[in-house]
Order: sequence, then structure tokens, then C-alpha cells
Amino acid sequence: MRAFEKIVSIPLKGRILNKPRSDGITMVIDTGLGLNAVKDLVQTAGEYIDIIKLAFGTSRLIPENIVKKKIKLYNEYEIDVMPGGTFLEVAFIQGKLIDYLTEAKKLGFTAIEVSDGTITISDKDRSKIIKEAHNQGFKVLAEVGKKMKEEDLTGEEIAEGIKRDLELGVFKVIIESREAGKGIGFYDESGGIIEQKLEVAIKGIDVKNILFEAPHKNQQVYFIKRFGPNVNLGNIQPNEVIPLEALRQGLRADTLKLVYK
Amino acid sequence: MRAFEKIVSIPLKGRILNKPRSDGITMVIDTGLGLNAVKDLVQTAGEYIDIIKLAFGTSRLIPENIVKKKIKLYNEYEIDVMPGGTFLEVAFIQGKLIDYLTEAKKLGFTAIEVSDGTITISDKDRSKIIKEAHNQGFKVLAEVGKKMKEEDLTGEEIAEGIKRDLELGVFKVIIESREAGKGIGFYDESGGIIEQKLEVAIKGIDVKNILFEAPHKNQQVYFIKRFGPNVNLGNIQPNEVIPLEALRQGLRADTLKLVYK
Amino acid sequence: MRAFEKIVSIPLKGRILNKPRSDGITMVIDTGLGLNAVKDLVQTAGEYIDIIKLAFGTSRLIPENIVKKKIKLYNEYEIDVMPGGTFLEVAFIQGKLIDYLTEAKKLGFTAIEVSDGTITISDKDRSKIIKEAHNQGFKVLAEVGKKMKEEDLTGEEIAEGIKRDLELGVFKVIIESREAGKGIGFYDESGGIIEQKLEVAIKGIDVKNILFEAPHKNQQVYFIKRFGPNVNLGNIQPNEVIPLEALRQGLRADTLKLVYK
Repeated sequence: MRAFEKIVSIPLKGRILNKPRSDGITMVIDTGLGLNAVKDLVQTAGEYIDIIKLAFGTSRLIPENIVKKKIKLYNEYEIDVMPGGTFLEVAFIQGKLIDYLTEAKKLGFTAIEVSDGTITISDKDRSKIIKEAHNQGFKVLAEVGKKMKEEDLTGEEIAEGIKRDLELGVFKVIIESREAGKGIGFYDESGGIIEQKLEVAIKGIDVKNILFEAPHKNQQVYFIKRFGPNVNLGNIQPNEVIPLEALRQGLRADTLKLVYK
Repeated sequence: MRAFEKIVSIPLKGRILNKPRSDGITMVIDTGLGLNAVKDLVQTAGEYIDIIKLAFGTSRLIPENIVKKKIKLYNEYEIDVMPGGTFLEVAFIQGKLIDYLTEAKKLGFTAIEVSDGTITISDKDRSKIIKEAHNQGFKVLAEVGKKMKEEDLTGEEIAEGIKRDLELGVFKVIIESREAGKGIGFYDESGGIIEQKLEVAIKGIDVKNILFEAPHKNQQVYFIKRFGPNVNLGNIQPNEVIPLEALRQGLRADTLKLVYK
Repeated sequence: MRAFEKIVSIPLKGRILNKPRSDGITMVIDTGLGLNAVKDLVQTAGEYIDIIKLAFGTSRLIPENIVKKKIKLYNEYEIDVMPGGTFLEVAFIQGKLIDYLTEAKKLGFTAIEVSDGTITISDKDRSKIIKEAHNQGFKVLAEVGKKMKEEDLTGEEIAEGIKRDLELGVFKVIIESREAGKGIGFYDESGGIIEQKLEVAIKGIDVKNILFEAPHKNQQVYFIKRFGPNVNLGNIQPNEVIPLEALRQGLRADTLKLVYK
């Protein structure tokens, strides 16, 4: 039971509170939390987290027994865990894709991010990778977008990428915005939303299939106001999970304002 | 005993070191810390914290037993704990004010923040709320200011609000600056101080009665230089308590410079 | 063993992986971590940290028994620990330098930072301090630069300072950039690198002898691209150690891009 649960009702109606959720996903970025911090996170905020991403290649840097224990703790709270897409790209280009998936399975990972943010991967190879990950029983999230500003995709290219990946049956398509959430994808240099590009990219697409990387509060507020409390959001910092959930439920000024004046 | 206590004396004299303090208050914003982090915080910095705010509606989101344990730990270190003002606003507008105060008492909260940052509350209702919280034995902090930029108060309005609340006998009047500390209250878009507005707002008021929300270091340095080491400061992030105390005691360049060249 | 160690090889070759390292130093700034956080840090990232700095005068503010336990934990992972330079400046100007070094030794510190970022110390006194710290068996890091913008050194002055300190046999010369890494030393107001000043400062100097304070990712990427994976970097936040190591090893887009397209 949550504190004050019997006294105060949730202001912004409609938030899906039970897991597993297929909408209203919160994906959290873990860049190297230790075990005490993971315990803190799941105990206070576990029910609001659907997916943990062990960001970029960080899994390769942390002692194996710590990675295993972390994943076990997350799994106990019904949280999927996936390595960062950049790490898959490294494994792929080193010709180790199958070994990578097998090892991920062994370590306890339940989801896989498939991206081409840094290296070039043909559509044919991308399709094979997604199929292989599905075959091995992973939940697959595909990411559309480039990491480097000079390779940034147009709205039209993002739209094509989304459609291509949805046809392959992925769980969600993530739109790349990096950990920083600035100057890439739908965000300008100060993290503001480039609405026109967003419109082009999502035209005709059901946003339930999309997971927006939205590390900044103004971005989270924008998407909740626009698509409701169950919009799928990612690259949330561990200490921002509860504040984000407060936004989703109208327990913070920015979205409470939608209900009361 | 603090490390080096017998060797190095405090450079900036006058800081009140014993609790309970009526001046020199540090109010810390907790947006969802877990138990390991709370233990860390009180063990390293407990003596420098007077009030913990479980920010906005976060209390409603965290398991009740965790909230209770957190409050107990804070109380053991003589730290008052209050829910965020936004949460009181939700309870009030849902007609649950008395239940809210009763439940807060039961959970161990010892202080209450009374605000109207998001919704509209008449002066008459505000006065009743403060009286009721006093009756139930809470330390009451009233907050003056609005959360939304378009509703931002003028210096004169802040001055009036401060006087109104002090007449009701509150412990301190908090000046709203949100968690972000930018573009609201006394701060411009980049977090700099709007000195002229500040002058108008505090003219003729004893600043000992005011608690400035000052999440950024430049703001903390400004207030310490201007009003001394015992100025009341709030919305301090947990990991900024020790750095702020270093500023208060002249153990960091910015304020050490006031003592030695 | 690290996770995926047998599957995926390190993309950016040459990173020194065994401690003690004389190059490739990562110096981390600890502004008041508690024991649970320290355990998390050493368990996940201990092998990538060479030096912990208990920043500015924070050591003076934390209970002695906590400081001792923290240092012990760090030392178990072969990590040197030093108090911040500002704290040495306070001890020196209070005429307590010898007592300060003796007490630091007793508490378990193994390194000392010698700076004059806030107060003025003559070259003669600086030389004496470094000699005394060496005599007491400390690893000595000297810092060149001023904390206040209006006293910021020129490139030429930094170059002279580096040469002066290297002649005294210090382990590394740190270039001052403060915790914020903006508007001082080699960084402009937004944290960008002032390349021309950097050129002047390091002309004719082996960069292995220098430790660059580089709290921001763009700064870390710049130095790794320019001087390789073993450039010495400092003022790294605890939660940025793993992300920095990912940059050093090419496990993140920004430096993976140097290896694969």
C-alpha cells in the first residue's frame, strides 16, 4: 500500500498501475548503479519501472557477479533488463551476435535493444538480428536514430524506420535522443521539442508503439500533456522515476494544472 | 567528532552548529530516496539538515512502510519531515484536509507546508488550514509564490504574502522557486538573482523569518554573502548538503575568500 | 571477471587495465558520499578509480569515524585518497600545516593535494609544503590555477606553474577547473575547450604529467580523442566513472566512432 492511498485519490485519471503494462512504459537508464542503489530503486519505485537499460557498453565494465545480482533484483520486481544498443552494435561488428545473445540470456537479460546509432547495419542484417533475438525469447526494442549530430535523421527517415521495425514485430520502437536529450532526434540544442519534425515522424503511426527517450522534465511534461499519462518514455534517470510518476498521475504542479486551477 | 576538528578551526565564524536551530535552517528536498540513501544522508550530513521535504506528491507514490521508515530515520536525527505543499493542495481541493493532517501525523510527519502554488486558495481558507495544522501540533511552513511562470507574483505581492503568513504565526515563510530554481520568484531564466524584485519583496521584513529556496550554488553563495552563514535555505538536493555546509562555514573557495585572500 | 568479457573485446585498444597505474589516472570527486554509496562505487567501479578527492573542506564536516571507514574501503580497492586542496590552504594559513599532514596520515589519507586556488602562497612556501608532504610519505598532486574568475591564470602562467611543480617531483600536476568545469582554466562559460590557451599551457610538456579536471562529457571526449584512452582526468563525479571508462574503452558512441563507422 502506498502512503495516503486511502485519503487522496489520483488527480490525473487513467494511469495504468498494474504490471506487466503494454502501454505507459517507463524505461530507466542505469549507467552503473551498485547493489545498494538498486535495492533502493526497486523498493521505492519498482512498480513504476518496466524496463531497465544497462546503458551503452557499461555491462562489459562491471563485474559479472554484480551484473547478475542486479538483473535478479530487477527481475524480482517484474522489470525487464536489456543491455544498451551500442553494445549490441559492438558485438555484431565483431561477428559475435549469437554469442552475445546467448551470454545475455545466461546473465538474466530478458530484453534486447537493436540499434544502429553508431555503426551502419543493412536492413537485411537488422531484420536477421531482430528475428534471432525473438527466436531466443527476448522482448525486442528497436531504436531508430543516430548518435552523432552530423548523421541525425530527418522526420521522414524516422517515420520510415518506425514502420520498417513495427513490421518486424518489435515490442516498441525507441526514438534516439541519447542520454543527454539535446541536439538530436526531436530535440533542439537546449532540449526543446522540434514539433514539426515530430509531426512528420509520427504521422499515421499509433504512438502506443513508440517509446520516446525523454530525459528532461519539459520533454516528459510535453508528451504527457499531448499523449496522456500512459505515453511510453525512456532514458529516465533512476532518481527521476518517482518525479516522472508524479507527473503521470497529476501529483506535481505541471500536470495537476490539467485537473485543477 | 568531525575529522580534523581539533586541527583546523572553522574559517567563517558564527555558524550555529547545534540543533534544534531556529535560524540557519537547511531544508532538503527528497524526491524519492530509498532507505540505504537515507541512512547515508543522515550519517554523513544529519547534523546539517533541519527539515526534509518529501517533494510535491511523492509521498503518495511510495510504499507506506518505506515512508514510515524514512521518517523514523530522519526523526532520530532531529530532522523535521513534511510532505510537499502541492500534495496538501490536492488533499484540500478533494475536501480531505483534516484526514490528510491526521494521516500525516500517523505516518510520523512533524511539519506541514501550506502553499497555493498550483490551485487557488482564499486567504480565509489559508488561515483555517494553518490554524488546523497548528492545532494538530505541526510545525507550519507557509509558501508564497506560484509554480507557473505566467502566474509569477510581483515583489509587492510576495511582500504582502510574507506579512500575511507571519501574522498567522508560521515557523518560516518559504519563497517559491520550484525544484529547478529558474525563471520564477527571485530567479531569472538562467538562475541568476533578480535583486530589484528581492529588495521590494523583503523590505522591512526580518529575513530570519524567510526561507529562500536556493537549489543552485550561485544562489546559495549570494544569500550567504548577503545575509551571513545562518540564512535559511531550502530545496537543497541531498548530495548538496555537505557542499552547502562547506559554503556556510567558509570551507570552500567562494566563501573562504571572505576571510582570507 | 567482467560480464561479456569472453565474448566482446575492447574496441579502443591500449587502455591500461591494471593498477597501480602511472598513466590513465581517473580522479573522482567525493563531496560527501555515505558508506552504502562508497560500497556501491568500489564494487562496481573500483578498478577504474585511482584517486578519490574528498572535495574542498568536506572532510572537516563529516564524522571522523565515517571518514575513516570511507578511506579504509577505498584503500582496500587500491585507491589513493586525498583531502581537497582548499582544505590544505585553510590549514596552512592557520599555521597548522604539520598537524594537518600528521592528522591526514592518521586518518588513512595516502595522497595530498597542494594548491593555492584561493589564498596566496609564495613559491618558497609551496616548495616547503610539497617537500614536507613527500617526507611524510604522501603521493603529492600539485594544482595550478585559481578558483575565482577574476584571478584566472593565462596559458603562460599555467605553463610556468606546471614546470615549477614538476621540478619538485610531484606525481601529477592538476589543472584547476573547479567542480563546475566552466569559465575557468581551459574552459569557457559553457564548458567548451579554449584550445589556444591549452596549446600555450602544455607546449613542450609531456601530458602524462598532467591531470586535467574534466567534469563534463564533452571535455572527457576531447581529451581522449586528442591524447588517447590513458589521458589523466579528474573531478569525475562518482556516477560518471563507468560512463567515462566506457569512453576510454570505446564502449560508447563518441569514441566507438574512432574504431568503427
